[in-house]
Amino acid sequence: MIASLSLADSKLNSWPGLIEAYRPYLPVTSDTPVVTLLEGNTPLIPVPTIASRIGRQVRVFVKYDGLNPTGSFKDRGMTLAISKAKEAGAKAVICASTGNTSAAAAAYARRGGMRAFVLIPDGYVALGKLAQALLYGAEVLAIKGNFDDALKIVRDMAQSYPVTLVNSVNPYRLEGQKTGAFEVVDALGNAPDWLCIPVGNAGNITAYWMGFCQYHQEGKCDRLPKMMGFQAAGAAPIVTGKPVTHPETIATAIRIGNPASWEKAIAAQQASLGAFNAVTDEEILAAYRLLASEEGIFCEPASAASVAGMLKVQDQIPSGATVVCVLTGNGLKDPDTAIKHCENQFKNGVEPDASAVAEVMGF
Amino acid sequence: MIASLSLADSKLNSWPGLIEAYRPYLPVTSDTPVVTLLEGNTPLIPVPTIASRIGRQVRVFVKYDGLNPTGSFKDRGMTLAISKAKEAGAKAVICASTGNTSAAAAAYARRGGMRAFVLIPDGYVALGKLAQALLYGAEVLAIKGNFDDALKIVRDMAQSYPVTLVNSVNPYRLEGQKTGAFEVVDALGNAPDWLCIPVGNAGNITAYWMGFCQYHQEGKCDRLPKMMGFQAAGAAPIVTGKPVTHPETIATAIRIGNPASWEKAIAAQQASLGAFNAVTDEEILAAYRLLASEEGIFCEPASAASVAGMLKVQDQIPSGATVVCVLTGNGLKDPDTAIKHCENQFKNGVEPDASAVAEVMGF
Repeated sequence: MIASLSLADSKLNSWPGLIEAYRPYLPVTSDTPVVTLLEGNTPLIPVPTIASRIGRQVRVFVKYDGLNPTGSFKDRGMTLAISKAKEAGAKAVICASTGNTSAAAAAYARRGGMRAFVLIPDGYVALGKLAQALLYGAEVLAIKGNFDDALKIVRDMAQSYPVTLVNSVNPYRLEGQKTGAFEVVDALGNAPDWLCIPVGNAGNITAYWMGFCQYHQEGKCDRLPKMMGFQAAGAAPIVTGKPVTHPETIATAIRIGNPASWEKAIAAQQASLGAFNAVTDEEILAAYRLLASEEGIFCEPASAASVAGMLKVQDQIPSGATVVCVLTGNGLKDPDTAIKHCENQFKNGVEPDASAVAEVMGF
Repeated sequence: MIASLSLADSKLNSWPGLIEAYRPYLPVTSDTPVVTLLEGNTPLIPVPTIASRIGRQVRVFVKYDGLNPTGSFKDRGMTLAISKAKEAGAKAVICASTGNTSAAAAAYARRGGMRAFVLIPDGYVALGKLAQALLYGAEVLAIKGNFDDALKIVRDMAQSYPVTLVNSVNPYRLEGQKTGAFEVVDALGNAPDWLCIPVGNAGNITAYWMGFCQYHQEGKCDRLPKMMGFQAAGAAPIVTGKPVTHPETIATAIRIGNPASWEKAIAAQQASLGAFNAVTDEEILAAYRLLASEEGIFCEPASAASVAGMLKVQDQIPSGATVVCVLTGNGLKDPDTAIKHCENQFKNGVEPDASAVAEVMGF
């Protein structure tokens, strides 16, 4: 029966967003104004068809972080970064980004009552990529310069004005992102044997490792996963050991030549006895299509690097192991790639009666 | 501490998908093969800025069903429809749709190991709308005829071949969709005072009402909400009382002139002492932008009809009431509308130094 007819003072009985869910593990106090869209709590979906390609009782799950409120894992870091910015009295946030970061920054900043500025290089014209951020109310400034110039300016701005930098150098971003590891452990009851993850700026692999280590210290899991990082072959500085001047890959979300968290990612890989490997655009697209057409899961191309990589090194997976592949973004973020790379199973001019249709269908 | 080192036999400790979560309330048995993407469990997000426009201690939440696995509420019905089709031995499913239904049908059918056929009228060329379904592996047949012809053929097919129809006439669709109401009650601890919902084919308002009534009978809530349905002004047959031959609205997901669940929706409205109202495209777009730029929530234009409608009739909301607005789909489904209707807060040619940027920003 219902305890009370009035809802006015009731607390919600559902997922409260990741700051409330993991408050003891995060750098917040009772004074922190929590800016949340109830991010996190994303599904850990079994992918049995992909697992059956490996066999040997290997279990495979995908952590589908594309179901966060703005469509990517960036929301995990942004809820914390924006809450802390608001706590510090910021009136605005700023970042240099044309992708998922700008969308997450704009959504959370506006929800928190702040302005959101996005710096991009002049001449950048793909308005479609910025439409989500613009709809959230971002103010976009195109500067006469390149992306590195934009990054330098946003750092300078944060030093001299009441504006908080929410690019990946913001330390709260990784603190928030580590909750992805918490959720994996909470769902499985322990850490997986392998954690496969796309690597671009290398922040997310760093954050997941922080999360697993913290949960391990707290006794929430009694082991740590091997951290298996996968880069796109045309943007694989950590694999090759040197920065890439002109990174190229269809997986735009990991098209980065000089990762900000390079050293931390190496540390995670070494401590976990993991590895870095590269996957080609063809392998990424094959995994992208496989996830959609066999498992019903539509992710960003960059996300599919984790599954492509796992399949590439599948012989190294111990029999009976549990593997989690992180899918960082929603496929709806990149409709152009979907249109270009779907199998075009399209038949025109079919006669409008059931028997003609049945024949085309093969019945 | 960890109960067991082995994960091999462990059950997941997280949301199991809506069929497992609500098994006692759904037409499934232990023989039903559950085809799930862990849909449901979508956030009920407070929208305090919108609520403050109403004042009078009214609380407003949005049920953000765009965070379902394929990006719309259709997944709720499809997990059940596809599971029952598989139980019945179907080798394929079929629907006539160019939107969210075709994406959900394809994702769940392929995950369940079935083929997915989508019938559309010949000459329909917006491949972008079908890209998601095609990537999921749908096979699309364009027939020489209009949409009504396509609907007639899919019904005929389901009579004569081992193919299950998953259009809205499939009764399991509404059974699955009613779980949206369960989740609202579970989160709030009771039913809200008002449930505001976009109305196109009128299936979802019917399903929510079924859910509230069932939960009420089970003692899970001690009251029922007023069902407030909102149609687009150019496609408002239930409001005007007669079918619309050429429905027109920017809210394509509710651009329907002759709703399949018309009578059931009227019954829900009457029994709940609710109402139907129409909202213009301008009102829909204003709510769409408001949700994004003030609350950080990006929905399909059709979804925003619920919030637009609530604001339109806000004087009728009792003081202190709790209102839930259903947001049926993810804004990423319709990037064209986002690009066309975002405030273009774009400044070009800014000099590349912090003081120039600060001046543009107003600091």
